[in-house]
Amino acid sequence: LNIAVKNGKVRAPTHIVSTICDDRGEEPTYAGVPISNIIEKEFGVGDVISLLWFKKNLPRYATKFIEMCIILCADHGPCVSGAHNSIVTSRAGKDLVSCLVSGLLTIGPRFGGAIDDAARYFKDAYDRQLKPHEFVETMKKKGIRVPGIGHRIKSRDNRDKRVEFLQKYARLHFPSVKYMEYAVQVETYTLTKANNLVLNVDGAIGSLFLDLLVSCAMFNQQEIDDIVEIGYLNGLFVLARSIGLIGHTFDQKRLKQPLYRHPWEDVLYA
Amino acid sequence: LNIAVKNGKVRAPTHIVSTICDDRGEEPTYAGVPISNIIEKEFGVGDVISLLWFKKNLPRYATKFIEMCIILCADHGPCVSGAHNSIVTSRAGKDLVSCLVSGLLTIGPRFGGAIDDAARYFKDAYDRQLKPHEFVETMKKKGIRVPGIGHRIKSRDNRDKRVEFLQKYARLHFPSVKYMEYAVQVETYTLTKANNLVLNVDGAIGSLFLDLLVSCAMFNQQEIDDIVEIGYLNGLFVLARSIGLIGHTFDQKRLKQPLYRHPWEDVLYA
Amino acid sequence: LNIAVKNGKVRAPTHIVSTICDDRGEEPTYAGVPISNIIEKEFGVGDVISLLWFKKNLPRYATKFIEMCIILCADHGPCVSGAHNSIVTSRAGKDLVSCLVSGLLTIGPRFGGAIDDAARYFKDAYDRQLKPHEFVETMKKKGIRVPGIGHRIKSRDNRDKRVEFLQKYARLHFPSVKYMEYAVQVETYTLTKANNLVLNVDGAIGSLFLDLLVSCAMFNQQEIDDIVEIGYLNGLFVLARSIGLIGHTFDQKRLKQPLYRHPWEDVLYA
Amino acid sequence: LNIAVKNGKVRAPTHIVSTICDDRGEEPTYAGVPISNIIEKEFGVGDVISLLWFKKNLPRYATKFIEMCIILCADHGPCVSGAHNSIVTSRAGKDLVSCLVSGLLTIGPRFGGAIDDAARYFKDAYDRQLKPHEFVETMKKKGIRVPGIGHRIKSRDNRDKRVEFLQKYARLHFPSVKYMEYAVQVETYTLTKANNLVLNVDGAIGSLFLDLLVSCAMFNQQEIDDIVEIGYLNGLFVLARSIGLIGHTFDQKRLKQPLYRHPWEDVLYA
Ligand SMILES: CC(C)(COP(=O)(O)OP(=O)(O)OC[C@H]1O[C@@H](n2cnc3c(N)ncnc32)[C@H](O)[C@@H]1OP(=O)(O)O)[C@@H](O)C(=O)NCCC(=O)NCCS
Ligand SMILES: CC(C)(COP(=O)(O)OP(=O)(O)OC[C@H]1O[C@@H](n2cnc3c(N)ncnc32)[C@H](O)[C@@H]1OP(=O)(O)O)[C@@H](O)C(=O)NCCC(=O)NCCS
Ligand SMILES: CC(C)(COP(=O)(O)OP(=O)(O)OC[C@H]1O[C@@H](n2cnc3c(N)ncnc32)[C@H](O)[C@@H]1OP(=O)(O)O)[C@@H](O)C(=O)NCCC(=O)NCCS
Ligand SMILES: CC(C)(COP(=O)(O)OP(=O)(O)OC[C@H]1O[C@@H](n2cnc3c(N)ncnc32)[C@H](O)[C@@H]1OP(=O)(O)O)[C@@H](O)C(=O)NCCC(=O)NCCS
Repeated sequence: LNIAVKNGKVRAPTHIVSTICDDRGEEPTYAGVPISNIIEKEFGVGDVISLLWFKKNLPRYATKFIEMCIILCADHGPCVSGAHNSIVTSRAGKDLVSCLVSGLLTIGPRFGGAIDDAARYFKDAYDRQLKPHEFVETMKKKGIRVPGIGHRIKSRDNRDKRVEFLQKYARLHFPSVKYMEYAVQVETYTLTKANNLVLNVDGAIGSLFLDLLVSCAMFNQQEIDDIVEIGYLNGLFVLARSIGLIGHTFDQKRLKQPLYRHPWEDVLYA
Repeated sequence: LNIAVKNGKVRAPTHIVSTICDDRGEEPTYAGVPISNIIEKEFGVGDVISLLWFKKNLPRYATKFIEMCIILCADHGPCVSGAHNSIVTSRAGKDLVSCLVSGLLTIGPRFGGAIDDAARYFKDAYDRQLKPHEFVETMKKKGIRVPGIGHRIKSRDNRDKRVEFLQKYARLHFPSVKYMEYAVQVETYTLTKANNLVLNVDGAIGSLFLDLLVSCAMFNQQEIDDIVEIGYLNGLFVLARSIGLIGHTFDQKRLKQPLYRHPWEDVLYA
Repeated sequence: LNIAVKNGKVRAPTHIVSTICDDRGEEPTYAGVPISNIIEKEFGVGDVISLLWFKKNLPRYATKFIEMCIILCADHGPCVSGAHNSIVTSRAGKDLVSCLVSGLLTIGPRFGGAIDDAARYFKDAYDRQLKPHEFVETMKKKGIRVPGIGHRIKSRDNRDKRVEFLQKYARLHFPSVKYMEYAVQVETYTLTKANNLVLNVDGAIGSLFLDLLVSCAMFNQQEIDDIVEIGYLNGLFVLARSIGLIGHTFDQKRLKQPLYRHPWEDVLYA
Repeated sequence: LNIAVKNGKVRAPTHIVSTICDDRGEEPTYAGVPISNIIEKEFGVGDVISLLWFKKNLPRYATKFIEMCIILCADHGPCVSGAHNSIVTSRAGKDLVSCLVSGLLTIGPRFGGAIDDAARYFKDAYDRQLKPHEFVETMKKKGIRVPGIGHRIKSRDNRDKRVEFLQKYARLHFPSVKYMEYAVQVETYTLTKANNLVLNVDGAIGSLFLDLLVSCAMFNQQEIDDIVEIGYLNGLFVLARSIGLIGHTFDQKRLKQPLYRHPWEDVLYA
């Protein structure tokens, strides 16, 4: 920048720096790729995410995996915090953006945060070469449940089809699935503790995303660390669930539901 | 509902009604379709939107059109209201959801609202069988610019490739494109007024979405009116632009940009 | 602005114009009054609102009335939409701003909007010199309930103490209370229809705020119209209720409440 | 709760517990005090905050101090992140709540967070009986600036009147000001390093709030720790600044400002 200023290319240092999308020409470019190119080459939503978030033209097997994650996380019924708040706001007669946003704001450590956490913990444990049982027992000592492990209904003998599908897809298409294999070893150990401590969808996505980043060989170490630290997987969940939250908002408006008031009988006025 | 109560199917009237996603079984269903089905059939993001927003399994040409709209609206550079607010919030050190949301809240009548408006006005004008020049002149009398018409740079002799691509796609795949043809006639008329009053991307999406709804023959009249009135196209823009807003948020965090403060010299303290 | 540019007072047109607070000197000024002045003169919260929203130094009886409105609207229990969403977000472990905001976004036409609506309708009816019964019957024909009229519990013989207190205060301190008197005449008429169609708190605040604006003689007609159109009373409700929403957020955190999930049995999956 | 259920006091465990405001009777109560009581006793905004946030009827000198903090933090011009985002959203034609919220979401570690941080660090240092120079040097070693210390313009010989006013008020009314005295000792030490490292408004509010909590003798140790950990002072800043953000929103609407677009020339497209 300073050199650019000296060379007279820019008169004054600008107040904003931005690197993902240039809208100054005849048509916007996403990470340098003109938008009409993107359309002509029949890029999918995953490819656009790859350009605007990662600034890379990731291979199609990777961007299809991103789309699969979006599809799996798009909704989880009306009872979870996010959908519930969007429903309440929609029934208060507010505009779509307000409804969506009111629900999005519940996403965080307790709702939707498990994918990112799973990626962080699995990465840390694998990179420090902790044996699966060491990892699980260390977590136990710290009093933290292993994110990505455990399911209310599913168990050893009644596996989650979505997890199986993701694993099959990755084994077929990813150059390497070492983080997922590690997660499976963790699962093998936790299953000796209880029947329902299976690898769940959050854990499968979290570990496989690490494999995607590492095995595509398009990111250096610093970039991968940044991605995990900044929490890109949270972005994936947020974007995916937006589809559901918008859906619930429309649903209530279509049904012309009246103002929601929580029932008095369900509140303990302590 | 009342009948269901009487029949003993539900014991008491519930406080919430919800119809798009059932999460009570082993795996969630989107509009009745189990999520593992969706993955196995290699459904795309557009198909999931179709299920969760429209409660229909729209044909693939339609859901691919939805994906194209998302791709085209995903970002438009760092200077527009939405990206700008997300950038400012990211530079204030806030979490991803706060950054995204701060940008989303600028979407409305003046930013992003043209697609829905274009659909509404074109639908109204076409359904009332207004001649294109009648429509344009009526709008002029009301002092409203025709939404979806006009471009800063593009003109009769320098068409917008994105618009041309959308039109080509729809002519090839849609059973009928009568609303788009109407929009083109409107463009023909406005081009006699000024060279840059071309049909822009917003107008193309708005009119083609009407064609999609009508020509797929899966919605009745009431449903189409609801969709246009509730403003589903706004949802499409909101979802699409979320990709860009999340991208800008990550971008600033990656660049470790400091707190933004608007320069004093750029403010008139009146 | 153009003149200022010509006179060389500003070199280039700025991109932002702002008139309520100048922070360029040693200490900020609110509508021209230095902040240390404000503290020394023992101004209250109502006086600061008066400066920053109305750009006027309103008389103390007026700013005390503003404070009374804030106190009356500060909270209304955990069951209303706003408090409920803040509670849900707090239980999702999110930061204070996210919790507050998730609740605020429910404020609008159906929740909190009655004060502004009452002011608008009473102003319109009074200014057009509609007789109270004409006003009520016209509303009935349009199928709109008179905002500010009606109470679940209160009735002719069991008045709302808060309304009585506001009326007493205004009769004592305001130069004129013509809009409130009009609202009372409307109440007299609606009470002939049903016992509970009393003037409620929203109606009392809405009508008295009109009296405040008119009778203090510090606003011209255009300014009053702007204030009613822009919806300053909505601002008053929003600010007031923020106290309660923040309170509910702290309350849940203090109580260390877990993630909220709406009970399945209370949802009709239609 | 379980015992209460067994004893038949409540039929089923409720899903929500709430303790600050009861709206089931004829009029709401704030922490047990009926709202008409509050009006009759001429309680101020600070008293209501005291009831709804702290569940205490704090002495008037304390609640007046709360009001002074709100007044001092109500606004700081149009250039800071919060006001800027509210201005941009207002100019996008959005409703008041969206504008306010878009600005509020920038409040956090870098904007507005210094008060809470000052309280936390001063409390920790004082309670651990660190000598002022030990505290400052330890912070320096950690590479953290002491929050609440330092000013762009003010200096040893040109003190901030607001800080002086707060100190005078507290010395006159608070039973003890030990945390503030500690902060002043810290300032004495930092002033030996540079002329502008004075105790600023954030530091004064942060340290004096600790004195308020401790010296009023109405909170036990656990309660004080909770208040500091949960971050009530952040709530104070958020509520205060809402006045300014709403003011800026109204200001732009009054001025009928058009859609904001950040100037291209001010962006480095890297
Ligand atoms: C699904 C889940 C609630 C199962 O709960 P549960 O069967 O009721 O289990 P309990 O809470 O009774 O715990 C039973 C034992 O399993 C252990 N356990 C439960 N989940 C565990 C996990 N994720 N990792 C390690 N141990 C776990 C418990 O510590 C407990 O051990 P103990 O008996 O030695 O104390 C739980 O596994 C979980 O929360 N998993 C995380 C799920 C996740 O990723 N969620 C994302 C949501 S978006
Ligand atoms: C692109 C645009 C700004 C072009 O503006 P411009 O070339 O500077 O045009 P001007 O404002 O100078 O207007 C020139 C003439 O064209 C007319 N005009 C401009 N846009 C028009 C429209 N959309 N429909 C009809 N007439 C239009 C103006 O009324 C004016 O007519 P007049 O000379 O008889 O008064 C304008 O067409 C526009 O805002 N279009 C809508 C764009 C849209 O859909 N935006 C979506 C944003 S998300
Ligand atoms: C409080 C309230 C719900 C009372 O409802 P209720 O006693 O159940 O009244 P109902 O809905 O049964 O209506 C009874 C009759 O009173 C009429 N009525 C009720 N509220 C009315 C009003 N505000 N203005 C005029 N007529 C009203 C109804 O139209 C109905 O008339 P009808 O029998 O001729 O059809 C209702 O008056 C109301 O919503 N008032 C507005 C309250 C307000 O300002 N709320 C602010 C919320 S923040
Ligand atoms: C006001 C402020 C920007 C002054 O900055 P400045 O005069 O430009 O100071 P510099 O950044 O050049 O630093 C000069 C020296 O003072 C030190 N210093 C600056 N602020 C300090 C602080 N708060 N505590 C301790 N040392 C501080 C710097 O470390 C530096 O020391 P060094 O020369 O040994 O490296 C700075 O003091 C500050 O950020 N203070 C915190 C203000 C605060 O509470 N803000 C709340 C905002 S809502």
